[in-house]
Amino acid sequence: MSITMHSASVPIFVRMLANVNDWLGKAETHASAKKFDSSVYLSARLAPDMLTFTKQIQIACDTVKFCVARLAGVESPKFEDKETTITELRERVDATIAYVKSVPAAQIDGSEEKDITIPRRDGSTIMKGEAYLKHFALPNFFFHVTTAYALLRHNGVEIGKMDYLGAPKT
Amino acid sequence: MSITMHSASVPIFVRMLANVNDWLGKAETHASAKKFDSSVYLSARLAPDMLTFTKQIQIACDTVKFCVARLAGVESPKFEDKETTITELRERVDATIAYVKSVPAAQIDGSEEKDITIPRRDGSTIMKGEAYLKHFALPNFFFHVTTAYALLRHNGVEIGKMDYLGAPKT
Repeated sequence: MSITMHSASVPIFVRMLANVNDWLGKAETHASAKKFDSSVYLSARLAPDMLTFTKQIQIACDTVKFCVARLAGVESPKFEDKETTITELRERVDATIAYVKSVPAAQIDGSEEKDITIPRRDGSTIMKGEAYLKHFALPNFFFHVTTAYALLRHNGVEIGKMDYLGAPKT
Repeated sequence: MSITMHSASVPIFVRMLANVNDWLGKAETHASAKKFDSSVYLSARLAPDMLTFTKQIQIACDTVKFCVARLAGVESPKFEDKETTITELRERVDATIAYVKSVPAAQIDGSEEKDITIPRRDGSTIMKGEAYLKHFALPNFFFHVTTAYALLRHNGVEIGKMDYLGAPKT
């Protein structure tokens, strides 16, 4: 099988988001062992002018949702940014996984040259589908999941590179 | 043009590594403005049992080098891990960019089903080329560049999301 726009996007997102949910589970276990409220993680930041842990997870999810919807040319579902617990963040991740799995591969394949409009505060940017996936959606997604991982590590959660990558997949 | 194993790997690596070198430049500018030796960044860590900044850059480079060499079925060049300054790290990044650009696209394309052997301390793992790119090389690469970015942000370097992503590419 040749690599396609679907195979180069959705499986990466689904696998990493499932890993994120495993880290969130380990964060809860750590909080419970140390007897602190796991919602303490939600406001953690690596620098005062970086976004909180909650926003890292929300944006990782939205990056995936928008990428899949835009490549497929469909309207993306709305998820309100109202999570206040680790459990709610896990539900957001699960809802995102379910959404991207629901979009048929055939709707995403062949979107290499499709014009993708990305709304920005200072006017929208238009990128071709393949460039959008490679130079915007994937880097953005990994930025936010890795920053979330770094915040958990920085706050003592016992996760390692194998939790980041997940079990080897042949 | 359809997405291919080359187009889904090398351009992502080259673009992000060029961005990394821009951050390294800004780190030097910051150190110079604050009058400290920029090699101070090199031993920074986000947690005591995470790797240093230097290792994040070295492993990001090696992930790229090995990915391209293994997909192409060629021997990868050796880079000694001996950098002790930001300038030397930038040279390592430049050497990695030059190497991956030197491998012909045709040698990487069609490697979706190729068996890729990844040496590990506890025995080697074999993955198919496409799975290796998507679920090992890309996540690993972005892990190390994002952790490097986070370390610079955590240490006051004035970089933002646009430095992470680079200028929009249509």
